[in-house]
Amino acid sequence: MINASVTEKFMQQNRNRARLLVSCPDQPGIVASISKFLFDHGANIITSDQHTTDPEGGMFFMRVEFDLPDLEAREQEIVREFAPVASKYSMDWRISRANQIKRVAIFVSKEDHCLVELLWQWRAGDLVADLVMVVSNHPDLQDIVEQWNIPFYHIPVTAETKADAERKQLELMKDQVDLVVLARYMQILSPAFVDAYRHRIINIHHSFLPAFVGAKPYERAYERGVKIIGATSHYVTEDLDQGPIIEQDVQRVDHHYDIGGLKRVGRYVERTVLARAVNWHLEDRILVHGNKTVVFKK
Amino acid sequence: MINASVTEKFMQQNRNRARLLVSCPDQPGIVASISKFLFDHGANIITSDQHTTDPEGGMFFMRVEFDLPDLEAREQEIVREFAPVASKYSMDWRISRANQIKRVAIFVSKEDHCLVELLWQWRAGDLVADLVMVVSNHPDLQDIVEQWNIPFYHIPVTAETKADAERKQLELMKDQVDLVVLARYMQILSPAFVDAYRHRIINIHHSFLPAFVGAKPYERAYERGVKIIGATSHYVTEDLDQGPIIEQDVQRVDHHYDIGGLKRVGRYVERTVLARAVNWHLEDRILVHGNKTVVFKK
Amino acid sequence: MINASVTEKFMQQNRNRARLLVSCPDQPGIVASISKFLFDHGANIITSDQHTTDPEGGMFFMRVEFDLPDLEAREQEIVREFAPVASKYSMDWRISRANQIKRVAIFVSKEDHCLVELLWQWRAGDLVADLVMVVSNHPDLQDIVEQWNIPFYHIPVTAETKADAERKQLELMKDQVDLVVLARYMQILSPAFVDAYRHRIINIHHSFLPAFVGAKPYERAYERGVKIIGATSHYVTEDLDQGPIIEQDVQRVDHHYDIGGLKRVGRYVERTVLARAVNWHLEDRILVHGNKTVVFKK
Amino acid sequence: MINASVTEKFMQQNRNRARLLVSCPDQPGIVASISKFLFDHGANIITSDQHTTDPEGGMFFMRVEFDLPDLEAREQEIVREFAPVASKYSMDWRISRANQIKRVAIFVSKEDHCLVELLWQWRAGDLVADLVMVVSNHPDLQDIVEQWNIPFYHIPVTAETKADAERKQLELMKDQVDLVVLARYMQILSPAFVDAYRHRIINIHHSFLPAFVGAKPYERAYERGVKIIGATSHYVTEDLDQGPIIEQDVQRVDHHYDIGGLKRVGRYVERTVLARAVNWHLEDRILVHGNKTVVFKK
Repeated sequence: MINASVTEKFMQQNRNRARLLVSCPDQPGIVASISKFLFDHGANIITSDQHTTDPEGGMFFMRVEFDLPDLEAREQEIVREFAPVASKYSMDWRISRANQIKRVAIFVSKEDHCLVELLWQWRAGDLVADLVMVVSNHPDLQDIVEQWNIPFYHIPVTAETKADAERKQLELMKDQVDLVVLARYMQILSPAFVDAYRHRIINIHHSFLPAFVGAKPYERAYERGVKIIGATSHYVTEDLDQGPIIEQDVQRVDHHYDIGGLKRVGRYVERTVLARAVNWHLEDRILVHGNKTVVFKK
Repeated sequence: MINASVTEKFMQQNRNRARLLVSCPDQPGIVASISKFLFDHGANIITSDQHTTDPEGGMFFMRVEFDLPDLEAREQEIVREFAPVASKYSMDWRISRANQIKRVAIFVSKEDHCLVELLWQWRAGDLVADLVMVVSNHPDLQDIVEQWNIPFYHIPVTAETKADAERKQLELMKDQVDLVVLARYMQILSPAFVDAYRHRIINIHHSFLPAFVGAKPYERAYERGVKIIGATSHYVTEDLDQGPIIEQDVQRVDHHYDIGGLKRVGRYVERTVLARAVNWHLEDRILVHGNKTVVFKK
Repeated sequence: MINASVTEKFMQQNRNRARLLVSCPDQPGIVASISKFLFDHGANIITSDQHTTDPEGGMFFMRVEFDLPDLEAREQEIVREFAPVASKYSMDWRISRANQIKRVAIFVSKEDHCLVELLWQWRAGDLVADLVMVVSNHPDLQDIVEQWNIPFYHIPVTAETKADAERKQLELMKDQVDLVVLARYMQILSPAFVDAYRHRIINIHHSFLPAFVGAKPYERAYERGVKIIGATSHYVTEDLDQGPIIEQDVQRVDHHYDIGGLKRVGRYVERTVLARAVNWHLEDRILVHGNKTVVFKK
Repeated sequence: MINASVTEKFMQQNRNRARLLVSCPDQPGIVASISKFLFDHGANIITSDQHTTDPEGGMFFMRVEFDLPDLEAREQEIVREFAPVASKYSMDWRISRANQIKRVAIFVSKEDHCLVELLWQWRAGDLVADLVMVVSNHPDLQDIVEQWNIPFYHIPVTAETKADAERKQLELMKDQVDLVVLARYMQILSPAFVDAYRHRIINIHHSFLPAFVGAKPYERAYERGVKIIGATSHYVTEDLDQGPIIEQDVQRVDHHYDIGGLKRVGRYVERTVLARAVNWHLEDRILVHGNKTVVFKK
């Protein structure tokens, strides 16, 4: 489901807009080569961000947005001709067209705060995406989702049916989905599922100072009298909640907050942080290297 | 060492100012009893804060600042006559006079950022304290401290001499010190030391989302690409870094920060957070219950 | 329109919960009198906040939440018997029952971000209110509103019809509305309208550092390169945008943000700030004195 | 006065480090030309940031840090050979060597909070500068300054002596000073003075939401019950306090803060904001265009 009025305008404005993302070992000449390549092909650079972790033996990261007349027709040519440049510097790279709107599947369970924030930002045009489906292990949020004419699939998950459920999910999404957003989906994904969408599954979870690992974190944070409630959004890896961090934020609390109050604040931080992370992914602003991200924010 | 110009003015203004702190099981009538007591004794309430964790079977916390004509002469009488009220409600309580300036020992090692922030807030009159000594296991900060005419004691600590060193520290502080501030003092205190200054030792340490427990936390936070650096100030208990949290704060970082940059941000957050916690303690704003604090901030 | 599931539970939990709000010139004995009154009438204080602007000749503000068995039946008695206490101290005061859910009219024009945030917080149970109507000078948001089964009234306003339009609005709301929320309603209310809902109309508007008074504030903020975008929620008075401030917040921006980006941030801050202000009003947490507020937050 | 231990290490590490800053009308080929130039001359790009206000007819801004073997000897050559590139694109540009430590004059009056923060950060090595003098229209801060062995000049200013005082100041600074920091210097500079140090004078002042222009801003902010206190650091232009904004920040306050409390918060925000602005200037991170800045932060 696209947000028609927003998307049409977006696609018109970004007809010739491409994004080039590059990661490679740093060495002199990379920027010169890339910018010469773009100039020689008639590209007009709109924004360019780069980062080097360490001038001696570090990694180089770059994101360039550029306009190229007749982009769609020339995309293959550009990709083909950039390959030797990329190869020379051992680049991990990709070029994407801005108006290839990313197709998103949102996974939920019973809580709706993250889902609803994503829907609202999508509706407001702040998230430009094609919301192809919402998948849930519970039926609770079906009405909200269908109100927006987005397909809702209820796929229950138990310990016994988990493998089966994932098979159904993957089948539903096959060739239809570029990004999976776990918007408070309370099931652990199998390594095989994670592998199928490497660096394309975004999760949100609470985070505290100090961490309260394990069950009932809000209850324990309350017992300890924490002064700050946080949330972390990250790419999902095989290592539960240990994947590359995309965004984090916090909100102050004090003794006035009971456990319910802490949870309410937590919901608020979670929906804000997840929406930012999803937005940056949709705009190809995130480069992953090892277990960390470089985010070229706007 | 007091900051004479500031302290004199403070003591003049607070000549008759007292602070009553109360914790007890909640039940009807507590506030009525306390406020009647104060009214009957001619006290004028300046500020009053209270908090109940749970109206059913919860704990009640209260802090009252009041002015009482002729306070110093009447303090004993007030304390004696409040005792039966306190007893009736099983209160844990204390009354302190605002112009009994608290005597503080600051413990440091080699890093000076927390020490210097405390010294300057003290100089600016934002921290009203009698800085009776700085104790260090290293000689590095002697010059800074003596510049302010504050006694500096260098007491080296090794695994072998630790018990001895603590004995010397306790002796130096005997009857001289109301609060110990660990301003990046990189030694673990023994349970006996902690016990001697229960809820009167404040520590500062870094905190991250997620936590990086153990060695080289900044290095590991960098590897993980954290987006937020935090610090936590807490009372020291036998459980290393697990005592009641007084204050926390954070600052955003991103991929531009190298390990040195993360540490610089950490220093900045640490000095801010520690100074706030110390200030609240000096003003008797912190009530400890179990492993948490109620802080009645101004 | 109430949110049935949330409201029912709320009313059950708050069956005997009352809120007493008091403003008066400070003098000794106020707290003792109030707490004695409550204790003598069998009330159990749940939370109590107070504030004195200046112990000498200042104003005293207090908010007490208490439970009183059989509250609804005894409310008249309590009010009657508190009157002499109030009179003795020249109190401006009111007692309200928590489960007298406040009835709210939301005024909008074309922008929906504030409206939608209020609707969703209401749906999530974070705002407990009876949304009796949405009034707009444009038809654009009718569909969204009616989706939630809330009556929508389209009352166009021009320079000529303004008096007439306000008459219609006031008639619609007569005896039906306790609070008017201007959720980006782009019309100035007449003094007569403001007077009819004194301290019961909440507005939201952008605020910048420095202020950009007049037309096209975002364009001018962009020209000046501001680093912070803010929003202010306030009670409406005859003085346009000069009423008592309830809440403010900001978000950082930088040169990456174009005018559209600044506006997007502005929308985000506005919806957050307005929802907080409305929530505090609904919970009787705001005391107005002169042109400022005292907010006893939770 | 340099901070010898810090500066020596800094200069060693940055022996061959240069910074190129460019502003010009945007057009294709700029980045390619610059990066080719740097590559052809054997430079290794350390960090590079760029920004375009608008791809159609906008302005282009760039900051490149690079290492060039034998920088000091080759600086003239680089400057000479870059000139034709710059000319082709109508660039406003400069190249500076990182280890040409900037010489700073700090102007103060009676308040010391900004001065002291700058001194502390300088001492900690967070601000790398040569503090050549402190100039004041009052003698109050002489002791603090001379404690650090920094020359202090007391130049009183009255309405009558102002022109004379500025003449003395300019003479003292002649060829000695690269940056003037007004660290709560409570005198207005003449247009001639401003002109002599265009975009090289940084000021700090309070800022509120809403603005309180004129006398006694804290008193008026208190009367209005503001919830946020801010500060703005900017370059000084002929237009008092209207110059290009470099940095802003805020801190939350509430009704607990009296006027003194608001001022204390104000001092805290001011010292933080000014130190950041000064640091960015020292590292050549600020590009001014019209009345706004582009800051390439680290």
